[in-house]
Amino acid sequence: TLAAPAIAQEMPSITWRCSSGFPKALDTIYGAAEVFSDAVSEMTDGKFNIQVFAAGEIVGALEGAAAVTAGTIECAHTASYYFWGQDPTFAFGTGVPFGLNQRMTNAWLYEGGGLELLNEFYATQNMIAFPAGNTGAQMGGWFRNEINTLEDMQGLKFRIGGFGGRIIERIGVVPQGLPGGDIYPALERGTIDAAEFVGPYDDAKLGFNKVAQYYYYPGWWEGGVALLNMINLDAWNALPDTYKGIVKNASAMANSVMMARYDTLNPQVLKELAASGTQLRPYSQEILEACFEAANETYAEIAAENEMFKKVHDSYMGYRKDAYLWMQLSEYNFDTFLMLQQRAGRL
Amino acid sequence: TLAAPAIAQEMPSITWRCSSGFPKALDTIYGAAEVFSDAVSEMTDGKFNIQVFAAGEIVGALEGAAAVTAGTIECAHTASYYFWGQDPTFAFGTGVPFGLNQRMTNAWLYEGGGLELLNEFYATQNMIAFPAGNTGAQMGGWFRNEINTLEDMQGLKFRIGGFGGRIIERIGVVPQGLPGGDIYPALERGTIDAAEFVGPYDDAKLGFNKVAQYYYYPGWWEGGVALLNMINLDAWNALPDTYKGIVKNASAMANSVMMARYDTLNPQVLKELAASGTQLRPYSQEILEACFEAANETYAEIAAENEMFKKVHDSYMGYRKDAYLWMQLSEYNFDTFLMLQQRAGRL
Repeated sequence: TLAAPAIAQEMPSITWRCSSGFPKALDTIYGAAEVFSDAVSEMTDGKFNIQVFAAGEIVGALEGAAAVTAGTIECAHTASYYFWGQDPTFAFGTGVPFGLNQRMTNAWLYEGGGLELLNEFYATQNMIAFPAGNTGAQMGGWFRNEINTLEDMQGLKFRIGGFGGRIIERIGVVPQGLPGGDIYPALERGTIDAAEFVGPYDDAKLGFNKVAQYYYYPGWWEGGVALLNMINLDAWNALPDTYKGIVKNASAMANSVMMARYDTLNPQVLKELAASGTQLRPYSQEILEACFEAANETYAEIAAENEMFKKVHDSYMGYRKDAYLWMQLSEYNFDTFLMLQQRAGRL
Repeated sequence: TLAAPAIAQEMPSITWRCSSGFPKALDTIYGAAEVFSDAVSEMTDGKFNIQVFAAGEIVGALEGAAAVTAGTIECAHTASYYFWGQDPTFAFGTGVPFGLNQRMTNAWLYEGGGLELLNEFYATQNMIAFPAGNTGAQMGGWFRNEINTLEDMQGLKFRIGGFGGRIIERIGVVPQGLPGGDIYPALERGTIDAAEFVGPYDDAKLGFNKVAQYYYYPGWWEGGVALLNMINLDAWNALPDTYKGIVKNASAMANSVMMARYDTLNPQVLKELAASGTQLRPYSQEILEACFEAANETYAEIAAENEMFKKVHDSYMGYRKDAYLWMQLSEYNFDTFLMLQQRAGRL
C-alpha cells in the first residue's frame, strides 16, 4: 500500500495547457513549443504532458499573458513584447529595438542577471518565465519602393510589430498593426507601403516577395527576438522540484533548437528569393541613426515614469555596452574574414 | 512487494563518472560539466548522480576519448579535437580552423545534420556525444613582439592547440604543444615567442599579459569551440529513455550557460587588460589569407585519405557557405551599427 504514493511523488501525472502565440503554419516558432513539450514528455515518460495549442485555439495571441496570470492556462509560449501595452517592461522579455543580439540575449538572461530581473517583474504578474526560443536578427521588411532618406519615410504606411511601431512613428512613419494573414492583400493593393514580419523563411511563406520588390535589412527593432515560456506561478509552485528542473532544461533545448532551425532554413529561402528578383537593400545610416535616437528618447520617457522598466532597462543596456565592446574583437573579425571569403566565392 | 521495482523502473539510482578535460581553475569550461551534472541531479532528485572529475584526477585530459571508448568512465566533458591524432575526424566535434562560429556550430549540430553525422563517427569509437558548451571565438594569442607580415611568422615559436598547430606550421611557424601551466614561464623566459590559450578571462588568470604585450585577434583556428559530453555507448544504451532525454537536455543547458559565462566574464577582463597596457592587434589580412589557404590544403589532404573525415568535412563546410551568406545581411549589419555606436560612446 505504500507503492502508489511513492510512485506518485516521484513522477506524478500532470497535464498543462500551453498556448503558443503563433499559428501552426509558422513551424519555426510554433514548432519550438512542440520541441519543449516533446522534451518534457521524453524526460517524464509522458507523465508530464504539456498540450500545445496554436494561437486562437484556446487563447488569442494577445491574451496569452492575461490568461497565464489568471491561471486559465498554465503556460504561454510567446513573445513577451506582445503585452508591452499592459506594461512596457514586458518588452525586455523579447528584446527591444537596437537591443541585444541573440547570443547576447542568452548571455544576459542566463548569466547577466537578466532572467532574475525579468522574473522579479513577472512575479508581479503572477508568472515566471524561461527562455525558450529566438529568431535571431530579423529582416527589416518589404517595401514597394526604395527608401533612402528620412524624407522617403514620411507618411509611409508600414506594417510593423508593437514596440518598433511606437519608435518608428517618431520619424514620421505611420505604423500599421495588421495580423500576419492580412498583410499580403494590403501590400498587394497598396493599402500599405511596406511590411515586416520575420525573415526569409517565414516571409516567403506569406508571399510578400510577390507584391514588394525591396527587402531591407537589418530589422533594427528585432535584433534578437526571444520567445519565453511564461508560466502561471501557482502552477509552477505546485510542481515537484524534478519537474521544475525539467521545464527549465526543456526550455533551454527549445531555445537552442528554434534558433538552429531559423539558421538552417533562412539561407535556403534567401537564395530562392534573390534568384527570383527580390532586391536586397541595407537601411541607410541616416535612417538607422534617426531610429536609434528615437529609440533612446522613447526609453528615457518610459523610464522616467516606470521604475521597473528603468531597472530592467539599465541592466539590459549596461550589458549591451560591454557585450559590443568585446564582440568587436575576435567574433566580428572572424566573421568578417569569412564573409569576405564567401563573397569572393572561396567558401 | 511491487513497490520497489516500480519505483526503480521510473527513477533508478545510477552513478556515472564524468572526466572534464580541464582543471578546476578554469571555472568556465570545467564549470560547464558541473552545470550539466547539477541539472541532471535536479531533474532526477539526485538519483542519477554524475560525478565530475578534473583532468588528471581519474583520467588525463588526452586520455578522455580512449577511457570512454573502453568504458573506464561513462562520460568525458571535453574538446573532441584533443583526439584528432587518433583520427582527424574528431576535430569536427570541436570545430576546425576557419570553421563555424558558435551560433553556426549549434545550428549545424542541432538542425543541420551535424550531430547525427558526428555520432555516426563516434559510434565507431563506441561512444555517442551531445553539445555541452562553447567558448565562442577565441583570441589569437599573446606575442612578445608585433607581427605584421608572413616574414614575421617565420620560425616563430608559438604555443598553439593541436589542429591549429598543424596548419600554422605550413606558413613557417614552429608550433609548441605546452600544457596550460607551462606556458607562462616559457613565455617569460622567451623559450617561446607567443602563446594562445582561450580569451581574456582565462588568459589573464594564467598571467600572460605580464609577459607579453601584444594580444592578437581573431583566433582563426578556434572560431566557435564546442565542448561535448562524450558518452560510452554501452552506458548510454543501458539508460532508461527518461534519463537519455535528461542527459540530452542537461547538455543543452550546459551548452548555453557556458557560452553565457564567457560572454559575461570576458568584457570585464578585457577592460582591465586594456587599462593595464595590453595592446590589442588584429592579424593582418596577409597572415589570415595564408593561414586560410594552409587550412584548405590540410583539409584536402586528409579528406583524400579519410572517407569519414571527408563526409563530415563536406557537410560542415557546405553549412558554413550558406551560413555566411545569410549572416551578412541582418545579423552583421545590426551588430555593425551597434559597434559603431559603441565606439562613438553612444551606448
